[in-house]
Amino acid sequence: MSITPFIEYEDATEEVRSVYQDIMATRGSDWVNNFWKALATQPELLRRTWEGVKFVMSDGALNPLTKEMIYIAVSATNGCNYCTNSHTAGARSKGMTDEMFAELMAVVGMANQTNSLANGFQVAVDEQFKNGGRE
Amino acid sequence: MSITPFIEYEDATEEVRSVYQDIMATRGSDWVNNFWKALATQPELLRRTWEGVKFVMSDGALNPLTKEMIYIAVSATNGCNYCTNSHTAGARSKGMTDEMFAELMAVVGMANQTNSLANGFQVAVDEQFKNGGRE
Amino acid sequence: MSITPFIEYEDATEEVRSVYQDIMATRGSDWVNNFWKALATQPELLRRTWEGVKFVMSDGALNPLTKEMIYIAVSATNGCNYCTNSHTAGARSKGMTDEMFAELMAVVGMANQTNSLANGFQVAVDEQFKNGGRE
Amino acid sequence: MSITPFIEYEDATEEVRSVYQDIMATRGSDWVNNFWKALATQPELLRRTWEGVKFVMSDGALNPLTKEMIYIAVSATNGCNYCTNSHTAGARSKGMTDEMFAELMAVVGMANQTNSLANGFQVAVDEQFKNGGRE
Amino acid sequence: MSITPFIEYEDATEEVRSVYQDIMATRGSDWVNNFWKALATQPELLRRTWEGVKFVMSDGALNPLTKEMIYIAVSATNGCNYCTNSHTAGARSKGMTDEMFAELMAVVGMANQTNSLANGFQVAVDEQFKNGGRE
Amino acid sequence: MSITPFIEYEDATEEVRSVYQDIMATRGSDWVNNFWKALATQPELLRRTWEGVKFVMSDGALNPLTKEMIYIAVSATNGCNYCTNSHTAGARSKGMTDEMFAELMAVVGMANQTNSLANGFQVAVDEQFKNGGRE
Repeated sequence: MSITPFIEYEDATEEVRSVYQDIMATRGSDWVNNFWKALATQPELLRRTWEGVKFVMSDGALNPLTKEMIYIAVSATNGCNYCTNSHTAGARSKGMTDEMFAELMAVVGMANQTNSLANGFQVAVDEQFKNGGRE
Repeated sequence: MSITPFIEYEDATEEVRSVYQDIMATRGSDWVNNFWKALATQPELLRRTWEGVKFVMSDGALNPLTKEMIYIAVSATNGCNYCTNSHTAGARSKGMTDEMFAELMAVVGMANQTNSLANGFQVAVDEQFKNGGRE
Repeated sequence: MSITPFIEYEDATEEVRSVYQDIMATRGSDWVNNFWKALATQPELLRRTWEGVKFVMSDGALNPLTKEMIYIAVSATNGCNYCTNSHTAGARSKGMTDEMFAELMAVVGMANQTNSLANGFQVAVDEQFKNGGRE
Repeated sequence: MSITPFIEYEDATEEVRSVYQDIMATRGSDWVNNFWKALATQPELLRRTWEGVKFVMSDGALNPLTKEMIYIAVSATNGCNYCTNSHTAGARSKGMTDEMFAELMAVVGMANQTNSLANGFQVAVDEQFKNGGRE
Repeated sequence: MSITPFIEYEDATEEVRSVYQDIMATRGSDWVNNFWKALATQPELLRRTWEGVKFVMSDGALNPLTKEMIYIAVSATNGCNYCTNSHTAGARSKGMTDEMFAELMAVVGMANQTNSLANGFQVAVDEQFKNGGRE
Repeated sequence: MSITPFIEYEDATEEVRSVYQDIMATRGSDWVNNFWKALATQPELLRRTWEGVKFVMSDGALNPLTKEMIYIAVSATNGCNYCTNSHTAGARSKGMTDEMFAELMAVVGMANQTNSLANGFQVAVDEQFKNGGRE
């Protein structure tokens, strides 16, 4: 079910188990999803990726639910089925309603549409928008 | 500066002018950006695209600032320079701080990273995540 | 102006010159565009790529103008500025009007929109559509 | 089979039913495909998306079959399985032969190849091609 | 299992059989994979694509294993499941270990991350890096 | 020249300076490129991204030059101009010749071509290739 065999908790080294425990503790869950079990064949890749995700998705200037929706936006744009499903599940567990999901998708669809139009028409960036409007 | 010539307000037909007026009124601004001036060579494409953007980006279950950030996430993922600059300007005018932008980018970067990892490892979707965790 | 220096006709080897001549003869033009001058640092890559393009874009079950528009559709979707400009020029020289370009872009925009929606909603393929409707 | 439950005709509101009826009438078909049944959880998103597709794909400066093939080109480039299958079915029903499909794919493959080459070599746009050859 | 029916060796024309034989001889294998059987509905597309792959993937300034890993990098980035699986199998048969695969994926993930960051921050290319550092 | 102002060494905090020093020490260079100066507006994002890149690109089962070429492959596929230029410069400084670059591009072009063909033909993965040929 993946390029590398899944490493289950009971078969894992101490190093991998400690990452799995942190994943479950951080999420308040009692299982580890396939993505991490595939990465666990290389403990260093597992640990670094998890630490990155944990840090990036934590509460900050943006709240965790907004971050999950941004994650879905990227995943739907890239056509990553695994990430779209897993982060939609994550967003729902953090309170995303069906209405919020539909609005998220409407923005994602519109952005992909106008991205291709701006590229297709080769529109030059307005002076006022250069550097994202930074003066 | 684009595949089609920009249609300026003074050279526009009534149909195009009414869209331009709605763009400026909706945004409380006194100018129209290049994207619309490129589309205006085909008034129907202009009008339909603007009406779609106006509807999708208005306040709803998600607020306009969150929607602008989702738009940036898609645009950065697709590498659309025009849209990244214009929607960053839009997000800033709606209150996005440098800190929020940096967190947005951190999520976008992480999502693009793990999207390629999930695809590269060909990870099967967990039962618990299927249909985005819908029971 | 590119990662590798442009090889001009007067500086080119016989092998490269013969490709340049075929490019100009095929197009009824008296110059060679930058793309080929960049590839010419590796004559074999130049020759193979040109032969592929020449074969693929020639008249067949689809006419050359339709093929140029399909090329634009892919290039706008990928955000390739060079290819969008060069193939739009090619399509225009084969008779694409502004109205045809606008309709092309409208389809490209809509396809990018619904692609991201189908991926975002994770819609399963209908039985009737499997294998592209092949019975 | 999708992030949101499919809304079947018999369970749909009047608003959704009228869209479904227009889809079937426009296509001369007696069923509605999954894409629309997934979007129907949000009637406004359903209606707007359908109206956009209906308008964009109708006969104009480009004929409906050419438009379906452009749609396939974008969908194959983006790797959208749902859209590739559904629009190939659509193109076939409008007369696309196996030979036309093979030529379409040959162009799509070539465009994706040279797009990455133009980006990889960072080729500058020729003066003659700027703005798509517009003088 | 594909848009076009698979052409098996026993049902193939002489032209197609000769390509199949060259595929098997080149690989030292006794079967032909689905990709080629799908393309074989159009013998010219089959032959040209195979000759391109055979030439490009042969030993040269880069060895075949490195080339397979580059192929995987592109395929994982594009989310092409077929190509990711087939070229990972190819790389393994040429000696890629699990550790090499994990490092490959780590680079692919990092590149996708910083690509989106560079696009999102709209970073201008340093003078020193222009034309890939070519003087 | 970017969405956020570049933070120069002399204007940087101690935290940012220590990252800049590590970048220069690791590379044996006396300057810091724009990418890092853009990220430095958010020191934590700067530090984490740099540490990731430093770790991932170091010598391991794959050598640094191979890793730079994989980075270029992803960047050309995504159409990221900044990354294509900077990593080509990096690869050249590590010994990549023009011939190696041309072969790299030939593989990247071929992979993008067959990726779109495999997606367009919707080819099912062969049993022998599932999980990348893992038994």
